Amino acid sequence: MLSTSLVAQACAEKFLAAKVSGRRLAIATTEQKDAALTAMAELLRARSEDIVRANARDCDVGAQSGLSAGLQDRLRLDAARVESLAEAVLAIRALPDPVGQVVRGSTLPNGIRIVQTRVPFGVVGSIYEARPNVTIDIAALALKSGNSVILRGGSAAEQTNAVLVALVRDALVGVGLPAGAVQSVDEFGRAGAQELMRAREYVDVLVPRGSARLIRAVVADSTVPVLETGAGVVHIYVEATADVPMAVEIVVNAKVQRPSVCNAVETVLVDAAVAATFLPVLGERLTALSVDIRGCDITRSFLPGAGIATDDDWATEYGDLIVAVRVVAGLDAAMQHIERYSTGHTESIITRDIARSERFLAEVDSAVVMVNASTRFTDGGEFGFGAEVGISTQKLHARGPMGLPELTSTKWIVRGNGQVRPG
Amino acid sequence: MLSTSLVAQACAEKFLAAKVSGRRLAIATTEQKDAALTAMAELLRARSEDIVRANARDCDVGAQSGLSAGLQDRLRLDAARVESLAEAVLAIRALPDPVGQVVRGSTLPNGIRIVQTRVPFGVVGSIYEARPNVTIDIAALALKSGNSVILRGGSAAEQTNAVLVALVRDALVGVGLPAGAVQSVDEFGRAGAQELMRAREYVDVLVPRGSARLIRAVVADSTVPVLETGAGVVHIYVEATADVPMAVEIVVNAKVQRPSVCNAVETVLVDAAVAATFLPVLGERLTALSVDIRGCDITRSFLPGAGIATDDDWATEYGDLIVAVRVVAGLDAAMQHIERYSTGHTESIITRDIARSERFLAEVDSAVVMVNASTRFTDGGEFGFGAEVGISTQKLHARGPMGLPELTSTKWIVRGNGQVRPG
Repeated sequence: MLSTSLVAQACAEKFLAAKVSGRRLAIATTEQKDAALTAMAELLRARSEDIVRANARDCDVGAQSGLSAGLQDRLRLDAARVESLAEAVLAIRALPDPVGQVVRGSTLPNGIRIVQTRVPFGVVGSIYEARPNVTIDIAALALKSGNSVILRGGSAAEQTNAVLVALVRDALVGVGLPAGAVQSVDEFGRAGAQELMRAREYVDVLVPRGSARLIRAVVADSTVPVLETGAGVVHIYVEATADVPMAVEIVVNAKVQRPSVCNAVETVLVDAAVAATFLPVLGERLTALSVDIRGCDITRSFLPGAGIATDDDWATEYGDLIVAVRVVAGLDAAMQHIERYSTGHTESIITRDIARSERFLAEVDSAVVMVNASTRFTDGGEFGFGAEVGISTQKLHARGPMGLPELTSTKWIVRGNGQVRPG
Repeated sequence: MLSTSLVAQACAEKFLAAKVSGRRLAIATTEQKDAALTAMAELLRARSEDIVRANARDCDVGAQSGLSAGLQDRLRLDAARVESLAEAVLAIRALPDPVGQVVRGSTLPNGIRIVQTRVPFGVVGSIYEARPNVTIDIAALALKSGNSVILRGGSAAEQTNAVLVALVRDALVGVGLPAGAVQSVDEFGRAGAQELMRAREYVDVLVPRGSARLIRAVVADSTVPVLETGAGVVHIYVEATADVPMAVEIVVNAKVQRPSVCNAVETVLVDAAVAATFLPVLGERLTALSVDIRGCDITRSFLPGAGIATDDDWATEYGDLIVAVRVVAGLDAAMQHIERYSTGHTESIITRDIARSERFLAEVDSAVVMVNASTRFTDGGEFGFGAEVGISTQKLHARGPMGLPELTSTKWIVRGNGQVRPG
């Protein structure tokens, strides 16, 4: 184990290399970056066996050290999964290059032309868990958007990540771009993550990917600006005038279609006026789909089989086939509950009343607010952005599903012919 | 003096009031917000004498405690300056309301309509120096953009600010908006500033206004996201092919027209090929305008009267009639100097060579890059934004001159009619 100051020094060298390489990447053409992405996909295919072998070693260590079955599954790469990684890289290659896009511009009265143009941030850091697919995903997204990237993956995937990082660097070098644009601090363990979170001088933005706990820890410890993603205590409010069959279908879809993701519903708020007609139907459908219901007292009077919801349930992102249900007295009570417990990700109202719908959409302060739609639509792919950089739950810079442009900053380009300011 | 925990408690109460009031302001109509701004302007005029009287007390204390003449001038309000404050408020009222503006939107293949809409952040904090005009300016900008505001002004302006904050609250109440939307923590001194910088739970964004030192301190200490503004070690590079008279006019304008502001030039980089023709003319003009020149050795061989520039000079924002001058070997050397010393605010190249101009514009990583124009044009007013929220030198959220839209976030509004995700 290196001493703290040696880790700091070794990290600073990597960070500087990333920064310097980032300047080169920032002026790379789309053609060059796309060639690097093609090379990445080809190397993933060519080295599939090496990757699977390194991953098997990680998986063995994980199994011996008691990694849960779910985490082992996320960690595992087989030939088919490596092929999907290659396909994901090619999908990112196919997206429009955000760098150089003109956001707005004008000609000033004195003839000066100003244009606000998208430019890369420079260096993007990412801290994530033992999911090797994130290594490739973030590296490809960063490369397409002209950014260097510094990676810190979960230690359980260390051998897999080492092979993948070497592969990405080879892809860069193969097309004449600097290997330094992709760095990993995995070898330094937690100390590397700490250095990355404090590297304001080198790192422009940090993207944590993974559990709510990981993201909270990064937000709390990082002095580098963070793009906060993902945590979703998501609500659906079934309003008094809701079309009951529609409400049932939407809640079932939002809970069951993919319960592990952040846009799955966690709490259903049911207007008291519709509880008697809605809850029994919902209860039957969810129970048949093996969903565990945890209700307030009134909910349980309609669904005697439901468990008891506590205050903790209202604040929990289950990520599983569990749903909390609370009967509320009306729109204001529903919005108060949401204000208190929501993580500001997505909330949907099911209603036929336009005035209440409009109030909900205007007053609920979340990244995405919906009427009569499943919360599962909060997704970069569904929104037509192509790539999945994550879903921002913060208000600065990006909010809601993020596409490639959210990995860029802008700069103003000003062209004159000798103008000076009078006065 | 209150104990730390009592200050924390008193601040938390104010912050909560700001947050709750912010929810009300977020749904206020443009008409209501404009009426509040009209009331602010009217109250400034009606209470001009009270304001000037409170300010005179602050000025007396400042004079006794040895406040510098410059700071005393910035602190002082007379009837004419109060009238300009009222006019500034009316100018902000006249700007378009950013809230509710549609950024982009589309109809998804399944018929769901998505619209990204501007919404207020919620609560904007501001930490600034003893310039009472900032109190009114920030309060008016926050109000127009639907945000609550928590103010921490310099202690030297405490009595003036107390009168101004009371006035803004009266203006809000007069039109039926909550007084809680405007809070001040001036009464708690430094402890109040500390609380404000740590109030992640309540405050969405913090805008420091003032000296580079103040801004650095806020960036270092704040856990609330900061919109970093202003510090400008601004460069002009006079390239080998520059039109010499144009270069002289631009440098003189950028240094002399208003030396105290952040977009004034601080360092002039002169290509060695043009030094012999350019420097003597520049030296004569600047000396005639009482500008103190600090040069590198080569510069001083052309301008024997110039002082010696040290490494510190290259990194200094003089904000005064002082300029550092360095002769460089060419474009790459100029860009290396800029990369090392620039604060990323504004840099301008003076040239007739299109290839070098394009390289400079593409490769220099600053908020604003210019060719053949005075750096003094980096300004919200000049760019046509109306209001002057500040000039961001960070890359996240906003970069360069910020207008009212930069005081907003966005949210996605999604309208369906029962859509669920298949699969």
